[in-house]
Amino acid sequence: MNQPTKFQSIETGVVNAPVSLPRRQVLAGSVSALAAAGLAGVGTDATAQTSSVAPKPLPAYVGWKDPNSLIVHSATTIETKRQAFGSGLITPADQLYIRNNLPAPDAAIVADRDAWEVAIEGVNRPRTLTLRELKSIGLDTVAMVLQCSGNGRGYFPSKPSGTPWQVGAAGCVVWTGVPVRWVADALGGMSAGMSFLTGTGGERLPDGIDPKSVIVERSVPAQAMTDAMLAWEMNGVPIPLAHGGPLRLIVPGYTGVNNIKYIKRLAFTAQESEARIMSHGYRISPPGGKGDPTQPSVQEMTVKSWINGPGTDGLPVKAGLVQIHGVAFGGLHRVAAVEVSIDGGKSWNEARFSGPDLGRYAWRQFVLAARLPAGSFSLASRATDVAGNVQPQGRLENAGGYNNTSWADHAVLLTVSG
Amino acid sequence: MNQPTKFQSIETGVVNAPVSLPRRQVLAGSVSALAAAGLAGVGTDATAQTSSVAPKPLPAYVGWKDPNSLIVHSATTIETKRQAFGSGLITPADQLYIRNNLPAPDAAIVADRDAWEVAIEGVNRPRTLTLRELKSIGLDTVAMVLQCSGNGRGYFPSKPSGTPWQVGAAGCVVWTGVPVRWVADALGGMSAGMSFLTGTGGERLPDGIDPKSVIVERSVPAQAMTDAMLAWEMNGVPIPLAHGGPLRLIVPGYTGVNNIKYIKRLAFTAQESEARIMSHGYRISPPGGKGDPTQPSVQEMTVKSWINGPGTDGLPVKAGLVQIHGVAFGGLHRVAAVEVSIDGGKSWNEARFSGPDLGRYAWRQFVLAARLPAGSFSLASRATDVAGNVQPQGRLENAGGYNNTSWADHAVLLTVSG
Repeated sequence: MNQPTKFQSIETGVVNAPVSLPRRQVLAGSVSALAAAGLAGVGTDATAQTSSVAPKPLPAYVGWKDPNSLIVHSATTIETKRQAFGSGLITPADQLYIRNNLPAPDAAIVADRDAWEVAIEGVNRPRTLTLRELKSIGLDTVAMVLQCSGNGRGYFPSKPSGTPWQVGAAGCVVWTGVPVRWVADALGGMSAGMSFLTGTGGERLPDGIDPKSVIVERSVPAQAMTDAMLAWEMNGVPIPLAHGGPLRLIVPGYTGVNNIKYIKRLAFTAQESEARIMSHGYRISPPGGKGDPTQPSVQEMTVKSWINGPGTDGLPVKAGLVQIHGVAFGGLHRVAAVEVSIDGGKSWNEARFSGPDLGRYAWRQFVLAARLPAGSFSLASRATDVAGNVQPQGRLENAGGYNNTSWADHAVLLTVSG
Repeated sequence: MNQPTKFQSIETGVVNAPVSLPRRQVLAGSVSALAAAGLAGVGTDATAQTSSVAPKPLPAYVGWKDPNSLIVHSATTIETKRQAFGSGLITPADQLYIRNNLPAPDAAIVADRDAWEVAIEGVNRPRTLTLRELKSIGLDTVAMVLQCSGNGRGYFPSKPSGTPWQVGAAGCVVWTGVPVRWVADALGGMSAGMSFLTGTGGERLPDGIDPKSVIVERSVPAQAMTDAMLAWEMNGVPIPLAHGGPLRLIVPGYTGVNNIKYIKRLAFTAQESEARIMSHGYRISPPGGKGDPTQPSVQEMTVKSWINGPGTDGLPVKAGLVQIHGVAFGGLHRVAAVEVSIDGGKSWNEARFSGPDLGRYAWRQFVLAARLPAGSFSLASRATDVAGNVQPQGRLENAGGYNNTSWADHAVLLTVSG
């Protein structure tokens, strides 16, 4: 808590005209006045509760999660509500989003976790290691933002197919395991000529279909092994099956799909995987187009931030001092600074970071104290990473609705009462 | 993960004689060979499960906790198992210990959290603030070790009265709230002549008893306000009632009892509280003696560490490379280094810290890679803080069994099979 003893604050004498808000998407099923006015963000969760469409219950395999913190899109796509992030330093497991490309394997695989086997290939002494053996090789811990590449898709006016995530297909998670580079070292090092680190998930594949069309197998550049990890703990407990236990590949700075659950094979390879999820899935395709291997793959995350409060919980906010807070992260790079706007991006104020810094790949909480009169305010945040990359105003339009880091899309409306 | 790319390791050629173990306490109800040999630590939890005494179930008010991670001593004293700490960076709420001096208030107090009121006194403009108002004053986050002053009491051969905690009346917790110094600033600053920060809990007191004899009210030096906080979130969610929600006083570096739950009054005072829990409770009394106000109060924590694995889960450990890991913290001071011994303290090796540094008041995970042959090893850890204080070999004998930081008491026996 090396913070100034006086609050930073901004006065809002400058906010004396009606606030012009960026265009926002009307959410399906939302019936409130806010949504009717085209304002997503604040009010979204509250209005969902008063909608005529009843919320879906949690599926049984994640029945241990907190239903009040989550939006169930489907059995394999479950989102954290913006209001649930709270101080947001680390996302509790029972509030963390779920996005599975295939149903989770049978729970039998976590009955004897230490017996789980992973084949290590593309090293000079390839072999299959049990989780028990991995635990003997090394132990480290990393905090990182786990984020679905489609997080923010819900803000694309083009309504791409796929889950319309808002901000909650993300969380900051602490992983414990063995760094991949130590595993490679223990097996004689990476073989010559290898350019990729390829992980294969242990999901049971449907019968009668070409495995390559469905298998969860992804490749990242081999240099990602510097910080990649084979992890068996998440937030200090054995990784739940729903999150990829007993063993998950963690690739800090890369989107969620690259963090292979129930990993059964980890290979240094000369080429990218030929699995469809790699060759055609998760590609930046032009709007209306289809994915193909010539297009950029959805891999590294870039600088992003959003505001989590106040007001997102639907509770009234009174005129006076308010603490505007949210989270910011830099993807591959450490986040360096965050600015906050209360006028939809016309003017910006530097926020302060609060709380511990969990490292390059984690998010940080930011806070701006502002003295607000009664009225409506469009709250936006804009982060900058240490490489100088600034979170953009707009999104990159693409068919899949990937990588939305637009600060305008992620703005929220705050109504302050007198 | 700025770690060396090769594991640090130690060879055990030096370990060729029978290992001499420090004297250990036999645990009540433990019937295993290990316990019969006077060896607590590793094997303790496993043996508890095979004991003829069935484990107590969780009381209803903490029915949401993980029973497999906890030892229920009584309805108000519940301990985390050593094996459950895992990587231990942050202790999940459902594994965190419970130690209440009085039963928790009715759950009605968390029905409308923002309406909770706390009287702020001993400032130039004293007044009662609601939690909603506190949230407008400021927002910060701190990670800290929360530890009962009696943690480690179970290792006192003198069997002091009170819960025989081993290592699990402690956890590393993230708190979000408003720094006390900002609240004081907002109310005109601390009044002249005040030397203490006194917090009063909101427990309902039994009828017909002098309130001072039971009320939970503690005083810490006023300078503790530099880092003290009125917190409403714990690990990113509203503080559960069982842990002091809706509002808890957090005093980083001070023992658990000073972190007042359901705080209803926070006062800068000229004198220490006259409540019995302050004047006679939590005092360092000579063995066999009683507490009185002339004795040192149990307040600041000091440097401590312990080993959490491998082997504490009862799973077999095979000869070869092992990763010996645990947690270390410095109390008021940041922890600087940890040494690990595999021979009961005859020789020491410097461990490395792993994972993010959550700040001065948090614990850090440490790891030592060691190549062990089959045999028995007494694993001990010894931490040093930045002020140069070294965790002592012995405990300070005292009637209450407080402040046990003895590295010898906290050693564990590891059996390695061939």
